[in-house]
Amino acid sequence: MDTRPIGVFDSGLGGLTALRELARLMPEEDLIYFGDTGRVPYGGRSREILVKYARQDVAFLRTFDPKAIVIACGTVSATALDVLREENAIPIFGVVEPAARAAAHVTQNGRVGLIGTRASIRSGAYERALEAMRPGTAVTARACPLLVPLVENGRFRPGDVVAETVAAEYLAPIKAAGVDTLILGCTHYPLMKAVIGGAVGPDIALVDAGEQCARWVKQQLEWDGLRNQRPGAGRRRYFVSDSGGDFSELASVFLGEDVHGEVEQIDITAY
Amino acid sequence: MDTRPIGVFDSGLGGLTALRELARLMPEEDLIYFGDTGRVPYGGRSREILVKYARQDVAFLRTFDPKAIVIACGTVSATALDVLREENAIPIFGVVEPAARAAAHVTQNGRVGLIGTRASIRSGAYERALEAMRPGTAVTARACPLLVPLVENGRFRPGDVVAETVAAEYLAPIKAAGVDTLILGCTHYPLMKAVIGGAVGPDIALVDAGEQCARWVKQQLEWDGLRNQRPGAGRRRYFVSDSGGDFSELASVFLGEDVHGEVEQIDITAY
Repeated sequence: MDTRPIGVFDSGLGGLTALRELARLMPEEDLIYFGDTGRVPYGGRSREILVKYARQDVAFLRTFDPKAIVIACGTVSATALDVLREENAIPIFGVVEPAARAAAHVTQNGRVGLIGTRASIRSGAYERALEAMRPGTAVTARACPLLVPLVENGRFRPGDVVAETVAAEYLAPIKAAGVDTLILGCTHYPLMKAVIGGAVGPDIALVDAGEQCARWVKQQLEWDGLRNQRPGAGRRRYFVSDSGGDFSELASVFLGEDVHGEVEQIDITAY
Repeated sequence: MDTRPIGVFDSGLGGLTALRELARLMPEEDLIYFGDTGRVPYGGRSREILVKYARQDVAFLRTFDPKAIVIACGTVSATALDVLREENAIPIFGVVEPAARAAAHVTQNGRVGLIGTRASIRSGAYERALEAMRPGTAVTARACPLLVPLVENGRFRPGDVVAETVAAEYLAPIKAAGVDTLILGCTHYPLMKAVIGGAVGPDIALVDAGEQCARWVKQQLEWDGLRNQRPGAGRRRYFVSDSGGDFSELASVFLGEDVHGEVEQIDITAY
């Protein structure tokens, strides 16, 4: 038993979809979320910059003495997980391995689609993980740089013609490749699940990287005896690197609960 | 006569449209461009963060001892010009005043449209400038947060259905307001001029904030005796805060000339 909090971070709001799953699966755990809204989005940046930003994000969360850190960001998970693990003696969880594991189990025909940010796709991390877990899996990957701006601007609902047009265009080659499974390799994308599902049709299973990560984190903490068994609801704290107005508003949508007044701003460059 | 360079900065690539105009109007001037590609985009950030970033951008450019600095960014011009002018004893030029001046001269019916980033529109800076230059001007302003990601992803050409759909949607209320003049209040937007012009029709005059700024800078430097009269072509140097791959590629498109191999990366957080 370990009552210390779990730290969670993302470039911005997307990671809240993973936080919601963590909170649902482990309601008694204290969760501390950091969204780097002063430097969002991460998806188009170089590995060098991403490692720098991720190190600061982790350093900030470590000031709370967390028992584990969850990288609720596909881009950082795909590009900086190894560095962060080397440099930190606490468990660091990313979304790539759990998503690849789930996709390897779900696929029947061995053809898996993958969408993510430019940096995630460029890294090849999902392909490597899938090859390790299910050798011979054919991966059709597509960078979707406009999906994060769309989601961050609240344009992710069915009926939004721009969201639907962009999604259909990105997903056409993946659908054409005959995949039966599609990894949503960025924690922003679950918000667009209905739009993405509409574009690929009902025969392709969607694997939500953040959701799979949350399940994996719970399992690992249980195996390692690190779960908080204390009764009652855990505390949730939210931090951002740029002022919280838009964050609170969108975060409430993403989390399905009101977070107004509970968001604190910090200077991430000081870490 | 002053042979020192002119410093120019933007959040990313958009400011190159202003740089191109500066270079066209003053080919003999040395121009130093900084694009903050490690923190792009600026348009959704708070004034507090924008002032912090802009101070660092100016501090970096000042290491080259420039005779003037051009804020080739609508967002910084609208939110941080006053602070930067107070703190720097060299001329600092923004795009808001020249754009408002041009629009005040161009409009016949006194109804002016304005598009810009969220931070630019929120600032009210264009409206204040227009009111000062042409009292009673009716401004219909619209924040267009998706246009910068579209341009930064190279999606700005006529025929791009997503760019056309987004532009038509943003511009519909401006068209409906009966404006005869539209300020492109962000230096990314001139790349979309054909798409924007297609959406509003031929009867609305488009005022390019970056182009107007370049003309203003030239005039001011001439008045102040600060122009470089040395014959021959000035030197162009490009700096970014994230690695130059995508920058070089897109910058070549934006500038209409090859900039491969001339882009240097710097750590802007050190300034």
